[in-house]
Amino acid sequence: MALKLNTEYLENFVSAHEFEGMKPLCKAADEVLSSKSGLGNDFLGWVNLPTNYDKEEFARIKKAAQKIKETSQVLIVIGIGGSYLGARAVIEAVKSSLYNNLPKDTPDIYFVGNSISPTYLSQVLEICKNKDICVNVISKSGTTTEPAVAFRIFKKLLEDKYGKEGAKERIFATTDRKVGVLKQEADKEGYETFVVPDDVGGRFSVLTAVGLLPIAVAGCDIDALMQGAADASKKYVGVESDCHKYASLRNIMYNKGKSIEMLISYEPTMTMINEWFKQLFGESEGKDKKGIFPSSAVYSTDLHSMGQFVQDGSRVMFETVIDVKNPQQDIFLEIDKENNDGLNFLANQNMSIVNKRAMQGTLLAHTEGGVPQIVIEMDKIDEYNIGELIYFFEKACAISGYMLGVNPFNQPGVESYKKNMFALLGKPGYEDMTAELMAKLK
Amino acid sequence: MALKLNTEYLENFVSAHEFEGMKPLCKAADEVLSSKSGLGNDFLGWVNLPTNYDKEEFARIKKAAQKIKETSQVLIVIGIGGSYLGARAVIEAVKSSLYNNLPKDTPDIYFVGNSISPTYLSQVLEICKNKDICVNVISKSGTTTEPAVAFRIFKKLLEDKYGKEGAKERIFATTDRKVGVLKQEADKEGYETFVVPDDVGGRFSVLTAVGLLPIAVAGCDIDALMQGAADASKKYVGVESDCHKYASLRNIMYNKGKSIEMLISYEPTMTMINEWFKQLFGESEGKDKKGIFPSSAVYSTDLHSMGQFVQDGSRVMFETVIDVKNPQQDIFLEIDKENNDGLNFLANQNMSIVNKRAMQGTLLAHTEGGVPQIVIEMDKIDEYNIGELIYFFEKACAISGYMLGVNPFNQPGVESYKKNMFALLGKPGYEDMTAELMAKLK
Repeated sequence: MALKLNTEYLENFVSAHEFEGMKPLCKAADEVLSSKSGLGNDFLGWVNLPTNYDKEEFARIKKAAQKIKETSQVLIVIGIGGSYLGARAVIEAVKSSLYNNLPKDTPDIYFVGNSISPTYLSQVLEICKNKDICVNVISKSGTTTEPAVAFRIFKKLLEDKYGKEGAKERIFATTDRKVGVLKQEADKEGYETFVVPDDVGGRFSVLTAVGLLPIAVAGCDIDALMQGAADASKKYVGVESDCHKYASLRNIMYNKGKSIEMLISYEPTMTMINEWFKQLFGESEGKDKKGIFPSSAVYSTDLHSMGQFVQDGSRVMFETVIDVKNPQQDIFLEIDKENNDGLNFLANQNMSIVNKRAMQGTLLAHTEGGVPQIVIEMDKIDEYNIGELIYFFEKACAISGYMLGVNPFNQPGVESYKKNMFALLGKPGYEDMTAELMAKLK
Repeated sequence: MALKLNTEYLENFVSAHEFEGMKPLCKAADEVLSSKSGLGNDFLGWVNLPTNYDKEEFARIKKAAQKIKETSQVLIVIGIGGSYLGARAVIEAVKSSLYNNLPKDTPDIYFVGNSISPTYLSQVLEICKNKDICVNVISKSGTTTEPAVAFRIFKKLLEDKYGKEGAKERIFATTDRKVGVLKQEADKEGYETFVVPDDVGGRFSVLTAVGLLPIAVAGCDIDALMQGAADASKKYVGVESDCHKYASLRNIMYNKGKSIEMLISYEPTMTMINEWFKQLFGESEGKDKKGIFPSSAVYSTDLHSMGQFVQDGSRVMFETVIDVKNPQQDIFLEIDKENNDGLNFLANQNMSIVNKRAMQGTLLAHTEGGVPQIVIEMDKIDEYNIGELIYFFEKACAISGYMLGVNPFNQPGVESYKKNMFALLGKPGYEDMTAELMAKLK
């Protein structure tokens, strides 16, 4: 029992009968998901993924990761959105937010192709100078602007450095199984390819090759990651499960007028898990002018920035707090004889105890301040537990989205800025819009 | 004219008469600030700081920075909240979000004492192994838990490594001018000290020694930073100024029911400026159950995570977009003869043009989607412009807070979690609360 939902801090905010009232709706959402009869049901590949994945490809991922480790000091991961956040989130959670700075026997990993900033890309290129690098380019179509631009640049860099033959041994393409320009190019050039499945949307793709290859390169145990998710897929079944309860709770909060959910952690290594969560829920539920705005914080750091607002500002939010029971590393705080700083009251014990007391103190303070606190207890931060957490959130997101009456699996709004950008850049096929948009610029 | 407010994208959201209607209120707020007659008027030292700073100390900061650069590979900055975010924000904006990974002739800089995570602290300690380090401990009182714990550990590390005499040459304390345990300790041990002024709150302190010493160590030009702020302090005077207009706009948005402001940038180097902004506004306005919830994003990265929500989710937010006119570095996108990816339509020009088109396309798309867009145009990201931006936001925050009727300079809510934490840890003086709080834990 790695993960556990603790709803006991909610007693002044949510009554037992409210859960009862949501149960039929939660059940309906669950049935729509199980029977694959709901909106977006072409994208349910993630449901059985943790057990039903391609074992042959999984073995190839491990081999490719080994090859990258043996031949490179740096892995460049090119991808955006779901082709970026999942891998980075797991690596930082399990290894470190300072992964690239720590002494280690695995390559540094830089994520590019997730913005159009030439400054950022130039800086990564500078870091790569005189280093052996491999590239994992991740794009289902191969035409998404951000990763495609970055791939052009890194492909050229590799071919200049290693020759065309050498480069093809160092480029790994995670893309569509059959079609698309990246798949065509990979086949033509002879890159090893991995599959972005047709029925798994980007934000649900961390447990496919999209996430698994970079995660394996960082030295994470991807078997344990999948096992955690597989166990979760068996555990979170039926409306009494913690996952369904969390989905119901989110909708209770929304119906009460709470417009913001803050995902809270007390470990800086969870910063990118927060970002992954924001995409998962924001993109799944933020449509048809509906949805809870997903936000996040890392405490106690952000208690000294957003803490004042959460304690006493507009009462628009609830918090979902990840309570990690056992730290990855600990430090024993020694008694200081002089005690100039008066801190001996917290010494003679592990620092993790102080962190836990900060969390408990904050749970009570924010409850007192009128901010509902949902707590997700987690045994520790490792591959297995993160695998479970990922599946927990994915399934909760699907159920929660269906309870809100939206299609949790599409993202039509993401196209709007792209269309405008294409028109402003004069992309063939978008010329009609160009003049009209140009006239609107201020 | 480095910074300019562009309100023209707001035409469908805010009428001219609304600005007119806010003017008397803005004027009242401005008068309260100028005459130092408003709530929190003990903390207005930041207003004249850019011209009225301690020149002797400023020269000492530069000397200390030079000494640190010459003797160390790593600078450890110990501080939380305003003693953390400002320095990190400026360094990352001006230098890089990858500052520690870039080849350079200045020390790596790690920020600790901003959380109670033993995992994070252990990892930084591991990175410091076998490296020469200096420490800048920043705390007005010296008793704030997070930095005080970290300082105990690093002080011991330095004394073990360099001896007590050697360590004192490597520890720089930024603290109260006269009182407090850190000041006492610094005097006793012989550390060089710098001042956290009495009349400048933490979130307004980046242009004091609090921010300036680490910023100078990173090789930033702190004269230019101060000059940008000094020029801003002359420019943003009177209710017609862009700064006052922005403050009025925020209150117009709030009065229309917008509960979230997202600060948007298209440069990853601005990520920590976003975090600094969130503290500045969140802590200043988030009180008495009021205030706009500050949030942020870096596009186009987050257009592929939060973009769907902003385009079509709950209409609860407005965006304030930093439009940087000239990139720090650029990359020329070459035509690719094969054009497999069909991207030649955006080649044969600088990548920064594509980034700009993405911004313009997004401004139009989000406007169309019903999200009001405030634009702050900025010449480029350098010390001078960041200095101006800092002062712009500080003054806008003061005016905006007064227009909301709050004290923009206190943060009483931050004490709540601390009190509970102390009681749960059995700190002397808090024993009364301990049993009661223990009983409330679930």
